[in-house]
Amino acid sequence: MNSAARNMALEVAYDGTRYSGWQIQKNAATIQGVMEKKLQKVVKHPVRLRAAGRTDAGVHAVGQVASFHTASSMGPEQFKLALNSLLPWEIRVMNVWEASPGFHPRYHVYRRWYRYLISNTPEMVPFFVNYALWIKRGLDLNLLNEYCKKLIGSHDFTSFCTLAGEQNPVRRIFECRVSRKGGFVFFDVVGDSFLRKMVRTIVGTFLEFENAKHDPSRVGEILNLKDRTRAGQSIYPGGLYLLKVFF
Amino acid sequence: MNSAARNMALEVAYDGTRYSGWQIQKNAATIQGVMEKKLQKVVKHPVRLRAAGRTDAGVHAVGQVASFHTASSMGPEQFKLALNSLLPWEIRVMNVWEASPGFHPRYHVYRRWYRYLISNTPEMVPFFVNYALWIKRGLDLNLLNEYCKKLIGSHDFTSFCTLAGEQNPVRRIFECRVSRKGGFVFFDVVGDSFLRKMVRTIVGTFLEFENAKHDPSRVGEILNLKDRTRAGQSIYPGGLYLLKVFF
Repeated sequence: MNSAARNMALEVAYDGTRYSGWQIQKNAATIQGVMEKKLQKVVKHPVRLRAAGRTDAGVHAVGQVASFHTASSMGPEQFKLALNSLLPWEIRVMNVWEASPGFHPRYHVYRRWYRYLISNTPEMVPFFVNYALWIKRGLDLNLLNEYCKKLIGSHDFTSFCTLAGEQNPVRRIFECRVSRKGGFVFFDVVGDSFLRKMVRTIVGTFLEFENAKHDPSRVGEILNLKDRTRAGQSIYPGGLYLLKVFF
Repeated sequence: MNSAARNMALEVAYDGTRYSGWQIQKNAATIQGVMEKKLQKVVKHPVRLRAAGRTDAGVHAVGQVASFHTASSMGPEQFKLALNSLLPWEIRVMNVWEASPGFHPRYHVYRRWYRYLISNTPEMVPFFVNYALWIKRGLDLNLLNEYCKKLIGSHDFTSFCTLAGEQNPVRRIFECRVSRKGGFVFFDVVGDSFLRKMVRTIVGTFLEFENAKHDPSRVGEILNLKDRTRAGQSIYPGGLYLLKVFF
């Protein structure tokens, strides 16, 4: 094994507010774009970052994991310090470790945990505007959790995503749960992998259904229709966090 | 009493990150400046807002109280809705009520509660950058609370502020306490009124003292010197909140 095969993994948290998502783009600031640029300054050779989840514009991450190959012999702690000193404050490397040579965050992740944050207060709290969706009205958490239960298991999620050339629209959901903590409502979804805008479409649809007091059976009906026009809107990205990925 | 004597009070929360503080200025965006402009659109006559506390640039408020006189006969709830629909998201009116004709937030407030927020975590959390000071090292809360106790009562705070033409640098502190909640450290100070940059200078000084393991008696010594150069630095404004005012 030569030194270029060294595979470094990073755990990254980022505030996605001012970024056009994870994936590198020519004329837009993206998390991947900024990170690769700074990494190249550290290791002095071109770098390609591979991430566990490609978050959309405005979406945040608490525990994104990415990896890159390098010829550098720098230690994990040095990598972290060097990167954090170069990166803008919105992107913070929380952990660095040397992974096995074949480790690939996207292929080896087996569960992704997304959280959608709702600020459920009588008035909008200014500090949370970029970090949660504000909903004024009371929410029926029992009804929302009934909808959630209908998603557990493997389903064709064509109705609940923006298909972007995927061969297979079937995804498996392990956990889906809505809970309250103070003025916040957490909408947690754990799945093997997610289609484009899938979590935001699920949350947006469930909030519309809850407001209309739809029966939980409606969720299964919409799934079975496999028709994106039958579900609700993909909701505000600022409330969504890639919370944790599991390998 | 004619209708122009109607005195309306507002409770306001704001994210001060992008503002040059409360007080109106010619060539800078300030909370008072933006609010007066929007208020005038609502009531159709010039308005002067008077606030309980004049927060500095970058400082936030959860429970600022301001009042204005108006000829409008609009109800409190209508005022709130109209203002919140015109104001930028950083400024939110939480409550509106009709106050007695002579009510003046600055003269009638008898306690102001400021909170300084520290994010005390091994790595900087991107979501809190504009809203808390990040400190990596462990903090000795017992020692900090010993310093705090030295401030209780009436003292000449010349050493702990930026004097700006005040006649009287004596202020009374009712409560001063440091506590931990999860990854956050709260630094709470309740006083009758505060001099310019006083809370930030107290917090900055105490953090320097704690790091140097200074004896608590040092706080009394610095107070007695009445010399601004003997205390520590006025610290990052983004961690400071005008939490509540009492009438």
